[in-house]
Amino acid sequence: MENRQVIIDSLPEKRLMRENFKIVSAEIPPVNEGEVLCRTKLVTIAAGSRAGLQGSASYAGAPQAGVVMNATGICEIEASKSESFKKGDLVICQSGWQDYSKQKASQCKKIIEDIDLHHYLGALGTNGLTAYFGFFQIGDPEPGETVVISAAAGSVGHLVGQFAKLKGCKTIGITGDALKCSQLTNRLGFDKAVSYRSQQFRGKLKEACPEGINIFFDNVGGDVLGTALFRMKEHGRIVCCGAISQYDTNEPSGSPRGIPGLLVNKRIRMEGFLVFDYEKEYSQAREKIKEMIRKSEIDPINDIFNGLERAPEAFVDLLSGGNIGTRIITVN
Amino acid sequence: MENRQVIIDSLPEKRLMRENFKIVSAEIPPVNEGEVLCRTKLVTIAAGSRAGLQGSASYAGAPQAGVVMNATGICEIEASKSESFKKGDLVICQSGWQDYSKQKASQCKKIIEDIDLHHYLGALGTNGLTAYFGFFQIGDPEPGETVVISAAAGSVGHLVGQFAKLKGCKTIGITGDALKCSQLTNRLGFDKAVSYRSQQFRGKLKEACPEGINIFFDNVGGDVLGTALFRMKEHGRIVCCGAISQYDTNEPSGSPRGIPGLLVNKRIRMEGFLVFDYEKEYSQAREKIKEMIRKSEIDPINDIFNGLERAPEAFVDLLSGGNIGTRIITVN
Repeated sequence: MENRQVIIDSLPEKRLMRENFKIVSAEIPPVNEGEVLCRTKLVTIAAGSRAGLQGSASYAGAPQAGVVMNATGICEIEASKSESFKKGDLVICQSGWQDYSKQKASQCKKIIEDIDLHHYLGALGTNGLTAYFGFFQIGDPEPGETVVISAAAGSVGHLVGQFAKLKGCKTIGITGDALKCSQLTNRLGFDKAVSYRSQQFRGKLKEACPEGINIFFDNVGGDVLGTALFRMKEHGRIVCCGAISQYDTNEPSGSPRGIPGLLVNKRIRMEGFLVFDYEKEYSQAREKIKEMIRKSEIDPINDIFNGLERAPEAFVDLLSGGNIGTRIITVN
Repeated sequence: MENRQVIIDSLPEKRLMRENFKIVSAEIPPVNEGEVLCRTKLVTIAAGSRAGLQGSASYAGAPQAGVVMNATGICEIEASKSESFKKGDLVICQSGWQDYSKQKASQCKKIIEDIDLHHYLGALGTNGLTAYFGFFQIGDPEPGETVVISAAAGSVGHLVGQFAKLKGCKTIGITGDALKCSQLTNRLGFDKAVSYRSQQFRGKLKEACPEGINIFFDNVGGDVLGTALFRMKEHGRIVCCGAISQYDTNEPSGSPRGIPGLLVNKRIRMEGFLVFDYEKEYSQAREKIKEMIRKSEIDPINDIFNGLERAPEAFVDLLSGGNIGTRIITVN
């Protein structure tokens, strides 16, 4: 059996390129007591992983050249030296971009195929839970409020928008091009969509929500955050979920203007969060999201690439804004 | 009877100067039905008023050249055409910097001299209520946490520090000079005090709280906020109360670096507030603060200047950091 691995060959100097990765063939690792051997079926491509590649500390850790690219995956147990799992079980774990990995049994979460498996990496995975806790807990939405989402076509954003509609909010997506704008409004039920690449971005955003913004769910940071900040209503909330605009560069832009003055005058709450802090509530949230999917109240998009070897290109493309929904690689 | 008024003669181009004000003599205004004539006894000098003098919109409104400088005062009713007040009553109202003003009865709040009257402009006034709601409601403190306060010797800051000590927090003040630092630690019970003017400010702050900051109560903004932000602990809270560093200038400095990245990674909440939103809870809060004063649990400092004509110099000096506690002018 071959164990293909996608290795970080070099850290990117500016923008990430396919050439920063290479594919190697490795041994199948031996499994010790309390461990399992996992065969990867599906892995995620997540924008957040880019932050780690800056070599700086981040919640995602700091990957180094020469190691397997980290990622969450759905795996089938190939061999088990743990009482918790038997061959054939399905688990979620940090498989990385490779065919086989050994895992501590305690680091694997068993799942059953009670719904399209891809959802376990999307709406039921870290992305979906991030959207769920960020919007409902940090955003604290009320029906009728105006919600603006940056990177709205992304894995987190496209779900936040759908949660917001379900809650009865007016929902506006900010994304990078006309195609994604039309997907947001036509397919996903957003009320409006605005491209941040438009010359008239500031004016278009104002046009989309002349009443101002109650909740800004921000995945982007930088200038997009700066623009939205100036349109916040009194007692508005900015959910700081990520800063994609600052990841794929070694020259991050400055912080938005008006801090803290605007926060004071408009009584704005700006709050960062990490989904991992809500771990005890995951199961309950997953059940609620599953229910929404089954009732067709939300339509989570899984954007699937076939073949492990395509992971680097899928990642580079994701960082330049090529995806809608959660990008997933079918490995085996 | 003379009615001296301190008028805004010109808006400051850079730093505010005494010459931006002039003193004139005006008529005593006639009082109509539902109004009262107030004789000013005491008025406040408040840093927040400077924001309005930038000509830009702020919660304090936008004063213009040629009008009486706005301020909260304690007044004695001279004449009343309202059933709510009789001659001799004491009220708090927006008297401005002048001997006499007419007020709508509905805009006056009656007080009785149940405690040193100055406290009604200090610990029981807007400053004290700002400290109280900002610290307890926005800061959400727990005993044992580390609280850092900027402009810690100021009217709000010196009370926040005392509330924090009372709550069982480790309390560190940031202020502008050695004299104020020693007042904070020796007189007001702060655990540590650091001057932001020190060359080693960053290092000194770190030394004062190697464990990091749970609550940063910020009255200053700019570089001081930027420095504190990098010392915040996970799940820390930044109470955005004001931005003094940005008031007395027409070239405000940039926003602090690390937003939103740091907010996300450390799950920091940064929240602005205005005390006016808590108006329904004022009475209850005043009773609690009065109790603290009577029990000598806190020691609010009132920094008193005698004579209305000294208001401009007292204000200019306040903006350059000359005061400890609440600055009050004895008018009549």
